[in-house]
Amino acid sequence: MSSPAQWSPVSRVVIFGGTHGNEMSGVALAKHWLKDPSELHRKTFMAEACLANPLAVEQCVRYVDTDLNRCFSEAVLSSPESDKDPYEFKRARELNGKYGSGSNPFDFVLDLHNTTSNMGATLLCCSDDDILAMHMANYLQSRSGNHSMPCYNYLINIPKKDNIYLQNIGKHSLCLELGPQPHGVTRADVLTRMKELVNWALDFLDLYNQGEEFPSFETDRYRVLSRVDYPRDSTGEISAFIHSELQDKDYVPLKPGDPIFTNINGEDVFYEGGTVVYPTFINEAAYYEKKVAFVLNEKVRWKVPALKLASAADHLGSH
Amino acid sequence: MSSPAQWSPVSRVVIFGGTHGNEMSGVALAKHWLKDPSELHRKTFMAEACLANPLAVEQCVRYVDTDLNRCFSEAVLSSPESDKDPYEFKRARELNGKYGSGSNPFDFVLDLHNTTSNMGATLLCCSDDDILAMHMANYLQSRSGNHSMPCYNYLINIPKKDNIYLQNIGKHSLCLELGPQPHGVTRADVLTRMKELVNWALDFLDLYNQGEEFPSFETDRYRVLSRVDYPRDSTGEISAFIHSELQDKDYVPLKPGDPIFTNINGEDVFYEGGTVVYPTFINEAAYYEKKVAFVLNEKVRWKVPALKLASAADHLGSH
Repeated sequence: MSSPAQWSPVSRVVIFGGTHGNEMSGVALAKHWLKDPSELHRKTFMAEACLANPLAVEQCVRYVDTDLNRCFSEAVLSSPESDKDPYEFKRARELNGKYGSGSNPFDFVLDLHNTTSNMGATLLCCSDDDILAMHMANYLQSRSGNHSMPCYNYLINIPKKDNIYLQNIGKHSLCLELGPQPHGVTRADVLTRMKELVNWALDFLDLYNQGEEFPSFETDRYRVLSRVDYPRDSTGEISAFIHSELQDKDYVPLKPGDPIFTNINGEDVFYEGGTVVYPTFINEAAYYEKKVAFVLNEKVRWKVPALKLASAADHLGSH
Repeated sequence: MSSPAQWSPVSRVVIFGGTHGNEMSGVALAKHWLKDPSELHRKTFMAEACLANPLAVEQCVRYVDTDLNRCFSEAVLSSPESDKDPYEFKRARELNGKYGSGSNPFDFVLDLHNTTSNMGATLLCCSDDDILAMHMANYLQSRSGNHSMPCYNYLINIPKKDNIYLQNIGKHSLCLELGPQPHGVTRADVLTRMKELVNWALDFLDLYNQGEEFPSFETDRYRVLSRVDYPRDSTGEISAFIHSELQDKDYVPLKPGDPIFTNINGEDVFYEGGTVVYPTFINEAAYYEKKVAFVLNEKVRWKVPALKLASAADHLGSH
């Protein structure tokens, strides 16, 4: 049996809301915690909240010039400031300077999102080996029990150097993607659920900092395989919509031959893949412009090693 | 017994979609019918489709400069064109010139909308004495049977001279307000329902034109009483959200003492009115900026006289 993965304590934690300015749960929570951060205090650390895209929040739009959550590329972050830059390029450099690799990166980044898709409480990792984030996700899942908005472990596996998401600027990260909720709308049930999950995430980090050992476990992860665009006519216009049998069926197995699209005359398009897959981001409003009708995922069984904070002695021993 | 209300035949019918550019059912239908209007043909007339706010549709936003569906005031329509006018002022004058009082007004206007509220298939009249529209609504309700997206008769009673909605430019009008659907999203079930309702509306006008008599009937109408804003803090910022017990409960009786708002700490606000009312437009995304959290309505029983096309003989007799 291998010994637990050992890490340093987690003391610098940031919670981003409003990375997309019309995803209202994170917007409301970040605004609230900026006014009154008392809920973010724990024995071993104090998290801070940040409204990631304040200008987009003010206008209640996803972004002003370009999607902030696609701006954290090496190219954007390292290029010199220019007046012609989209607002979000400048904001990405600011955030990176404060929380990311520009200075001493934060230990943990939580990034709060909503989706119009029926994705429950999706816990999104961008790295397949962020053990700390995986234990956090497992802790959230365990505490959630049989919650009506269940947790799903989601993996968009991107090499760190190619990762252009905000969450990537920290050493460890988890994105909470809660839905369904229309953009521009605050639903109390979704807001409450997100607040609860963030609090539990901080509880987890606090336990970890205090030396609690988290045993190894196995879990299901939904890993992105590919993205599927809408059918389009010769002019590029969308010519069919998500089929009502697929609508709201995020994480439900999609089998070869199942209907996926229907056009305005009721003619259907069927899934022609050869294997069972798990769709997500079905009919997400913001993905129409990204040419993504839904995302296809595989479900993989994952072993996660035990986790324990390295003790002072371990630290001494390792040097 | 009074004789049926008699009217002239209805031959000029326009169906507006995309009055709000991100309400996708009407956008999709108007685009479809502009390409292929065959579905709009009836024995006695041919309806035409119109994309009311094409620039907003292109950008997938509610409006570009200002809400088009509040631009049909006498003041806007009669004022001289100016370069400084919002885009929607210009567009309102164009639409009014083509379909409204600027020339010979169209006989019937159907205006297609979506809402993020759980309002089913709301059939919205702006006049309490548009007998033709009420018979159309009754016909849609009858043909709908026990449809999972039920019809509701909705009345915003506005004197014609004060009415600033697009639908007001025709002699008769009905607005179809279907939800819930997030703005920017096309749900197949909502699209199908809207298409069906428009087709039935045209069927109704065709039957009417052919001389069918529609007997008098009684029905429930939900009539707007007042609009309720969100609780706000001293800076004007929204400080509480729609309570989860009110969320999605459009047209469900709201009783004195029922919870209506909850804040981020779970503190509730209760309905303090003295009578049972019927809320609608609960948590509509586009109404945050209009300072409307929901609308309060009374349910009133309404008698509608029988309807029959005036025959040629009647016409002769009346002159």
